Amino acid sequence: MKVRILVRLKPGVLDPQGRAVHHSLEGLGFDSVEDVRIGRMIELDVADGTSDEALDTMCQKLLANMVIEDYTIEKLENA
Amino acid sequence: MKVRILVRLKPGVLDPQGRAVHHSLEGLGFDSVEDVRIGRMIELDVADGTSDEALDTMCQKLLANMVIEDYTIEKLENA
Repeated sequence: MKVRILVRLKPGVLDPQGRAVHHSLEGLGFDSVEDVRIGRMIELDVADGTSDEALDTMCQKLLANMVIEDYTIEKLENA
Repeated sequence: MKVRILVRLKPGVLDPQGRAVHHSLEGLGFDSVEDVRIGRMIELDVADGTSDEALDTMCQKLLANMVIEDYTIEKLENA
């Protein structure tokens, strides 16, 4: 089973990397960009029986820093 | 308009960060994980009229390294 975990900074947490990318996009002439936030995508290939609780625990223990980050878990088709 | 850009390493490109996370998950007792790949998520807030071509150009010029990375563009609801 493919699982996609998206980890993003919580609202209100400063994102200097996103700000730098925003600035660079403006420098390249893309004026229509209003905001940029950068996060991580973690693609897991897990055994089919893996529980949602196990995935949650992986995120909370290792994949996300719960102090400053949120995560969402998306299960993709059985590919 | 919210746009989510997912940047991932091309198949075949070594992902040492993913391998390290995989190893750590195994160390934590998550044996059901078969593979881990790590990529970037870039969330853009762009003006509604922004064309697909402009988004493609942003990816190719700045957001992705086309030599080793692929990208996908997902338009989210007008939020």
